[in-house]
Amino acid sequence: MKASAAIVTVLMIAATAASAAPRAREAGVRIGVLQPGALNAITDVAGVKVGQVTIVRGDHVHTGVTAVLPHGGNLFQDKVPAGFFVANAFGKFVGSTQIEELGEIETPILLTNTLNVAEGAAAAVEWTLAQPGNEQVRSVNAVVGETNDGFLNDIRGRHVTIADARRAIEDAKDGPVAEGGVGAGTGTVAFGWKGGIGTASRKLPASLGGWTVGVLTQTNYGGVLSIAGVPVGVRLGRYDFKREIEQKKADGSVVVIVATDAPLSDRNLRRLAERAFAGIARTGSGFSNGSGDYAVAFSTNPAVRRTPARRSGVAASDQLANDAMSPLFQAVAEATEEAAINSLFAGTTVKGDQGTIEALPLDKVLPMLRVP
Amino acid sequence: MKASAAIVTVLMIAATAASAAPRAREAGVRIGVLQPGALNAITDVAGVKVGQVTIVRGDHVHTGVTAVLPHGGNLFQDKVPAGFFVANAFGKFVGSTQIEELGEIETPILLTNTLNVAEGAAAAVEWTLAQPGNEQVRSVNAVVGETNDGFLNDIRGRHVTIADARRAIEDAKDGPVAEGGVGAGTGTVAFGWKGGIGTASRKLPASLGGWTVGVLTQTNYGGVLSIAGVPVGVRLGRYDFKREIEQKKADGSVVVIVATDAPLSDRNLRRLAERAFAGIARTGSGFSNGSGDYAVAFSTNPAVRRTPARRSGVAASDQLANDAMSPLFQAVAEATEEAAINSLFAGTTVKGDQGTIEALPLDKVLPMLRVP
Amino acid sequence: MKASAAIVTVLMIAATAASAAPRAREAGVRIGVLQPGALNAITDVAGVKVGQVTIVRGDHVHTGVTAVLPHGGNLFQDKVPAGFFVANAFGKFVGSTQIEELGEIETPILLTNTLNVAEGAAAAVEWTLAQPGNEQVRSVNAVVGETNDGFLNDIRGRHVTIADARRAIEDAKDGPVAEGGVGAGTGTVAFGWKGGIGTASRKLPASLGGWTVGVLTQTNYGGVLSIAGVPVGVRLGRYDFKREIEQKKADGSVVVIVATDAPLSDRNLRRLAERAFAGIARTGSGFSNGSGDYAVAFSTNPAVRRTPARRSGVAASDQLANDAMSPLFQAVAEATEEAAINSLFAGTTVKGDQGTIEALPLDKVLPMLRVP
Amino acid sequence: MKASAAIVTVLMIAATAASAAPRAREAGVRIGVLQPGALNAITDVAGVKVGQVTIVRGDHVHTGVTAVLPHGGNLFQDKVPAGFFVANAFGKFVGSTQIEELGEIETPILLTNTLNVAEGAAAAVEWTLAQPGNEQVRSVNAVVGETNDGFLNDIRGRHVTIADARRAIEDAKDGPVAEGGVGAGTGTVAFGWKGGIGTASRKLPASLGGWTVGVLTQTNYGGVLSIAGVPVGVRLGRYDFKREIEQKKADGSVVVIVATDAPLSDRNLRRLAERAFAGIARTGSGFSNGSGDYAVAFSTNPAVRRTPARRSGVAASDQLANDAMSPLFQAVAEATEEAAINSLFAGTTVKGDQGTIEALPLDKVLPMLRVP
Repeated sequence: MKASAAIVTVLMIAATAASAAPRAREAGVRIGVLQPGALNAITDVAGVKVGQVTIVRGDHVHTGVTAVLPHGGNLFQDKVPAGFFVANAFGKFVGSTQIEELGEIETPILLTNTLNVAEGAAAAVEWTLAQPGNEQVRSVNAVVGETNDGFLNDIRGRHVTIADARRAIEDAKDGPVAEGGVGAGTGTVAFGWKGGIGTASRKLPASLGGWTVGVLTQTNYGGVLSIAGVPVGVRLGRYDFKREIEQKKADGSVVVIVATDAPLSDRNLRRLAERAFAGIARTGSGFSNGSGDYAVAFSTNPAVRRTPARRSGVAASDQLANDAMSPLFQAVAEATEEAAINSLFAGTTVKGDQGTIEALPLDKVLPMLRVP
Repeated sequence: MKASAAIVTVLMIAATAASAAPRAREAGVRIGVLQPGALNAITDVAGVKVGQVTIVRGDHVHTGVTAVLPHGGNLFQDKVPAGFFVANAFGKFVGSTQIEELGEIETPILLTNTLNVAEGAAAAVEWTLAQPGNEQVRSVNAVVGETNDGFLNDIRGRHVTIADARRAIEDAKDGPVAEGGVGAGTGTVAFGWKGGIGTASRKLPASLGGWTVGVLTQTNYGGVLSIAGVPVGVRLGRYDFKREIEQKKADGSVVVIVATDAPLSDRNLRRLAERAFAGIARTGSGFSNGSGDYAVAFSTNPAVRRTPARRSGVAASDQLANDAMSPLFQAVAEATEEAAINSLFAGTTVKGDQGTIEALPLDKVLPMLRVP
Repeated sequence: MKASAAIVTVLMIAATAASAAPRAREAGVRIGVLQPGALNAITDVAGVKVGQVTIVRGDHVHTGVTAVLPHGGNLFQDKVPAGFFVANAFGKFVGSTQIEELGEIETPILLTNTLNVAEGAAAAVEWTLAQPGNEQVRSVNAVVGETNDGFLNDIRGRHVTIADARRAIEDAKDGPVAEGGVGAGTGTVAFGWKGGIGTASRKLPASLGGWTVGVLTQTNYGGVLSIAGVPVGVRLGRYDFKREIEQKKADGSVVVIVATDAPLSDRNLRRLAERAFAGIARTGSGFSNGSGDYAVAFSTNPAVRRTPARRSGVAASDQLANDAMSPLFQAVAEATEEAAINSLFAGTTVKGDQGTIEALPLDKVLPMLRVP
Repeated sequence: MKASAAIVTVLMIAATAASAAPRAREAGVRIGVLQPGALNAITDVAGVKVGQVTIVRGDHVHTGVTAVLPHGGNLFQDKVPAGFFVANAFGKFVGSTQIEELGEIETPILLTNTLNVAEGAAAAVEWTLAQPGNEQVRSVNAVVGETNDGFLNDIRGRHVTIADARRAIEDAKDGPVAEGGVGAGTGTVAFGWKGGIGTASRKLPASLGGWTVGVLTQTNYGGVLSIAGVPVGVRLGRYDFKREIEQKKADGSVVVIVATDAPLSDRNLRRLAERAFAGIARTGSGFSNGSGDYAVAFSTNPAVRRTPARRSGVAASDQLANDAMSPLFQAVAEATEEAAINSLFAGTTVKGDQGTIEALPLDKVLPMLRVP
């Protein structure tokens, strides 16, 4: 840890704290052909909780933790089926191999910065060991994703503590989710603008199953920004591989967490996770070499929850057939695209460790989108 | 085989035979920020050859074969490094496991219809056994992709013969590549319009390496068509999950073949193949359950070619570093998106086995794109 | 095809036709700690059927086809959940990507020689299209494995026809399974001795679930032969990497088909397939570069069968929990090891295309095993 | 952390500290057909260093850390190509996705207990940030494996600190490697006996390339113990699925680290890692559901080292061809089998947190092996 006499300001951003900017949909942006849920957030999937700890200390420290809890019960005893997908793995996602082998998640999912995944993992382990009913637990598969906030944040200082990460878990709640420079998005940068946390959802019509898909993204990636198909990056003159500017390393990362109430097998959850990147692709991601692009998806449906009764011997479960998956695939692609755009809309200009990153200039962007 | 007294018309579509419609770029459509090669085709990668056999017999038979040869020499003796990626595997791609294990391709790559992959594989084997220098060859890894042309084609009749597939290999040539309803694209449908074969390329500026990436696609997939970011599918009122029309099965497939002259390892070729689907995502693909979405990528660079000398003991090869991959990733995504759109631009209305599929109505579409 | 005036002898080996040699267990060899089923064969899993066509024409042609049918009904309409695993992929396994994506098999599984997988695939497609109830089927995922019988067989002649492969399917039956140089094992070689088809099974005690696991192997691989832990290869002086003999290419392949009546998810079937190679490892396989080592596993349990009712919307199924898998893993490893050894015990000396391969000399081997 | 007034004894086990028992080969056990290197240890691969910290505090704490350094230079600046393989992933291996994506390792490889992987990861990050020349490093991919020592160790107390793990890195040295209950093997159990750290190597004869393969294993797994093919577990009456004893959970894990001086591509290193499990299979592993079975392999050869010069643009490297891999595959299987057996031979009886685990009774075992 960096010794520092600087005033330390740790802000807990509540769901009500938000940038003044509209969310993309409020600004008239329409992404896809399906409709969002009530909150247009991952918390539209009933039971899902989100907690965020934002850490800002002067100019040099901008980082934090975001925790997503699949449900409010004992996650270790009542595991959720899950799938995992890697789009590009220049990243330090923790816990993926066990998700793939057993098809399940047994802890909160944490997001933080690249050099503090260890603290996130330790927090998930400690919190799980401490839950009532887990007194005999001796194996915990922590799930932690990250992106690199090393431009706005003194990342080498490793400023996130185990306690910070535990607090993100403990403060998780349902309802609206703060977006932009909060939690694990405090110091992230996307397409050269301030990125961060974004969320969105889709609720399928009854004729397509009526299921909800919710997404939360931690955006820190680049490429050629496109919003609802409009080449905003090119029009703003800021994009990867632009000739006349010094070629910055086109790196960064995006982590996507997907929740659904559809009763899916772990295999179909993996397929769902994979489709998140169709949404990311549509925002103009270059999936560059240096990017850590991961998605994890889980189902909250009680019919597939891996309760103790379902974890030994033969147990019945209801599962959605392969043939019914396509609407969910459409939903996750749309929600992910919108969540990523929401993270940019919610960004505010930040002066950080190595310089300043501006908010996406909505005053210029919205006219390009021909929305009021 | 279906017994038939009908007049059999097998058309060999030469590269000069083409629909009257402009290619997307000729029509003013601009996709991405990089520039195409001279032909804007997979054959911009020097040495790559394409052969196509188109099979049309009355209304009921619309099918064919497209062959891509990585180079004009003995492919088995001088193998090319290769990578393979699955986006969704409701499809019958032959030869993938050996590509993944050994990182190489040793035959032409064939595309055809779903129920004739066996004939494609037999042709690749027979042709390889028959090449001078291959007299002792006893193991051949045929590589065959497919999409399902069962709406325009009597696919159950299995009308592609081994001889047809061999002819596609033998007639392969460099130069311009016929697009639309030719070869393996003769009977395919994309986004509800006539799909088929499309091709495009990108040539990186010298500052980014100067390498060329060429793509050929066999389009037979669906979703919500987007052209250069414009939601054409919605504006035309034809897209998946549209409420008021009967929900057709949102299926289909797309196979992408990627060539480059960059000296890539097989691992980086797999990564390149994966990025093809960023381009497919941007066209509005739903990556639906029933889709067989595969990409295979190879390098033609002599420095990585697996000649007999490089196939035993220790051998030197030059390889591009991970850190230099990002421009190639951008290139393949752009070229794939444009190749898929080219396949639609080249489509012509076809009356087939189970009904008629119309060409994309460019008269309506081009004004939406605000290009002349 | 090779023009030939030679007398053509196609032998249909019935299950009752067998070498005079004892099976390993009959000879007193004990592998593992679990007990076999009644037949000690893949057909101990109720409903599984095996058909074999053996093709011998003079000295030069020794090849064939083995077909395994997961059940006797309409396989396409009533698909079985399945998993797939690659140990080494210098091989041409057809159909694997769709098994992995959808977790199911919808055709017979065929084994044949390397250069005739196309004929096997064509046969599986044609047979499936021809089954009553499949009149509207337009997509079939054929599953075909192979090993290379090019030493005993004129493999370049491609002597297996589509009709041969269809006959293997059509003649499939339950009951004892012929082993050794029959069907797809007619021309194979293992550890320098005559290999071929082998089978074995394990039936778990009721306390461990009572499930049956059956295995069928096509052995054509090498290494340092070990039988029930005894280093037979070294003692016989015939093994890979032996100093004083000319180093033959240590290649070959083994394909393993695993059936079980346990109600497994596709993910757990993949894990089951993977454990087959623990058994292969114990026989002394070198998993050499040139080996095509694949396993496919399926469940016959009606509770997981993908009937039309289970292939749309939400459907109930019973599945065995992860925690109950370990006895099945033990069972498949044991049964695979024993099946491979059975294939050697049943081998008889064959004079073939490029020379003679001797049967494993049981007169020398059994004393090494200290069994009567 | 557990508050404790107990006397804390942290023992640094030097390479010279060892159990009095012979190593397997010293006792006359012969595994495989190839010869070991001079030390019969992973450190036979020149440049590889091993550091171990053993933590014992009374009966309740038995745990530790083992660190393997691919070379003694700046690992981050001069990365090594690497491959990774999962045999069963009920385990918390950190860093695998980036190894797979980029084909390289840039830190020490650490082994510890299941609930302290976070501390291992934090140590690898901190140590890397602190190395001279790494002042600008902002992304570090820590590689940490684990097995569960929760029977002999109060694992819930999470007794390994970041400082412990850093000390294992800092104390790494070449030369002989301590085996048995040291470092990350301090509290592990294998086949019901005391497991731990084991190591072995193979040096290929010049005719097969002359390369060395070294292996280090952390053994904590079960099954039916077999030593050089002899069914020791059955003869001792202690094995999984034994009828008459209470069925203990047949779980545990084994992590294998493989080093070689052969100039391998990352793809061939992955294949090498996979073959480690052929050796594990031959020891009688059940690859049970609860096992975390991972292998990571790297090459120390300078011709493939990813120095800064090789990490941008096109760079030459020498690589061993696929066709030359088979002897290395044989070598790694043999060395892994012997390393695992060595871990058992070096075990000593330990009274731990939940009971006592006995050393493998060599007095009974050696006669079974008919070695003096």
